[in-house]
Amino acid sequence: MPEITIDQFEQLMESELPFAQTMGLKVDHISEDLVQMRAVYNKDFLRPGGTVSGPVMMGLADAAMFLAVMAKIGPVSLAVTTQLSINFLRKPEPGDVFAVARLLKLGKRLAVGDVAIYSASHSSDEMVAHVTATYSIPPR
Amino acid sequence: MPEITIDQFEQLMESELPFAQTMGLKVDHISEDLVQMRAVYNKDFLRPGGTVSGPVMMGLADAAMFLAVMAKIGPVSLAVTTQLSINFLRKPEPGDVFAVARLLKLGKRLAVGDVAIYSASHSSDEMVAHVTATYSIPPR
Amino acid sequence: MPEITIDQFEQLMESELPFAQTMGLKVDHISEDLVQMRAVYNKDFLRPGGTVSGPVMMGLADAAMFLAVMAKIGPVSLAVTTQLSINFLRKPEPGDVFAVARLLKLGKRLAVGDVAIYSASHSSDEMVAHVTATYSIPPR
Amino acid sequence: MPEITIDQFEQLMESELPFAQTMGLKVDHISEDLVQMRAVYNKDFLRPGGTVSGPVMMGLADAAMFLAVMAKIGPVSLAVTTQLSINFLRKPEPGDVFAVARLLKLGKRLAVGDVAIYSASHSSDEMVAHVTATYSIPPR
Repeated sequence: MPEITIDQFEQLMESELPFAQTMGLKVDHISEDLVQMRAVYNKDFLRPGGTVSGPVMMGLADAAMFLAVMAKIGPVSLAVTTQLSINFLRKPEPGDVFAVARLLKLGKRLAVGDVAIYSASHSSDEMVAHVTATYSIPPR
Repeated sequence: MPEITIDQFEQLMESELPFAQTMGLKVDHISEDLVQMRAVYNKDFLRPGGTVSGPVMMGLADAAMFLAVMAKIGPVSLAVTTQLSINFLRKPEPGDVFAVARLLKLGKRLAVGDVAIYSASHSSDEMVAHVTATYSIPPR
Repeated sequence: MPEITIDQFEQLMESELPFAQTMGLKVDHISEDLVQMRAVYNKDFLRPGGTVSGPVMMGLADAAMFLAVMAKIGPVSLAVTTQLSINFLRKPEPGDVFAVARLLKLGKRLAVGDVAIYSASHSSDEMVAHVTATYSIPPR
Repeated sequence: MPEITIDQFEQLMESELPFAQTMGLKVDHISEDLVQMRAVYNKDFLRPGGTVSGPVMMGLADAAMFLAVMAKIGPVSLAVTTQLSINFLRKPEPGDVFAVARLLKLGKRLAVGDVAIYSASHSSDEMVAHVTATYSIPPR
């Protein structure tokens, strides 16, 4: 069983992550091993070339990793990102983008995971971006 | 002489980078070798712990690298980020954050640079985040 | 069908990648979509704590990505790594380490992939390191 | 004053980092804020195109960061790299390569730094590679 529910995480985003609302972030699915979130498209996402801007995908990935950590250890809002690396692979056309995140390691002090980002405008075997991220976890 | 002016870049952000306005991005300084941008603080920047959220710093760094590329090759809006990696070093307190970007290499097809991010709330020798990024440049 | 065979790649390593021999690199498997290589253990791999040193895992990952590119486009020895990022997740005990590499994107100019590194001393669902890498491909 | 001497670190490499000897690593300079190491050229460094192979530069950078950490906190051999990211910028011609490393942050649990890699075959304002790395520090 995941240690946080969709309602709990969406309330936490509402009260504590203002950018999540600007970006229209929603939770699609939570399990202990895999979570999926979505950025609901709006025209502020665009950048030159008619594609979704990088910061939207980075914000979505960061939130999805945060959720993946909480799915394992419960709502610990003081976990913080220490490192995030993103490769932009394909230009998503205007539309929702979604992120599938999983942890590669959950240690005492650090959690490391990766996030696959897809677009409603591409077939499901074509990632539009790939992220790895590290979270620092407060002592439990 | 840099190949783009502050006015030109701020107009380009206004017409083509909607997130730059959401984040309050401004240009402080452009030279051929170094550029400085700023994210003017607003309360939507906050995240748990009373610190500036990661996506704001990632968006600022991405825009500053974009500007550093244009300072060298002129306004080429189709240059795109292919990779961005950020280390979060210290938690900035509420306030403006600024980014100093330079290119480490400008090749025919790729530009690589790094960005030092500082906060008005820290002394000037303490970075709050460090970024490296790669841009793909269209054929000239 | 992959565009290179195990024999072809091992000959190429022998003639052109001296460090591959120092590290005891071998190819286990090549398919068009996934390749697996191995670093055969020797005591020069050790570092403090009795674990396999990072440079061995980085060299193995770099070679495995090189092979994954060649499995798709054939033996193009002038493809060069432009970026490599590694997360060390668990300390492998002395023994062989192996790398499973796949491409996330093969473009005209860049190939991006990830590599999962495992150890003979850990169960197969525990990566010891995770790598993403970018290769620049010469014009075809 | 740095917390480790050239002799102490070279002895530590000799007893505990076998790959450092394979790669011909030497310390040029240690201060509290900046360290410089060198990989003395030998023909095993080569890769296709007559350039120094990536793993040599990654191993050199990893050792230089290890030294930068020890210059601040003393000889703590159980500090381990958790993340390393490298951008390859220019192809060094055959010859020594050297690494200048500094810490961007030294926290209780993590140290983050960057490393500039130069080549004897390039002018001193042209990096051949740029690295950022994170070390996990044992409790003191």
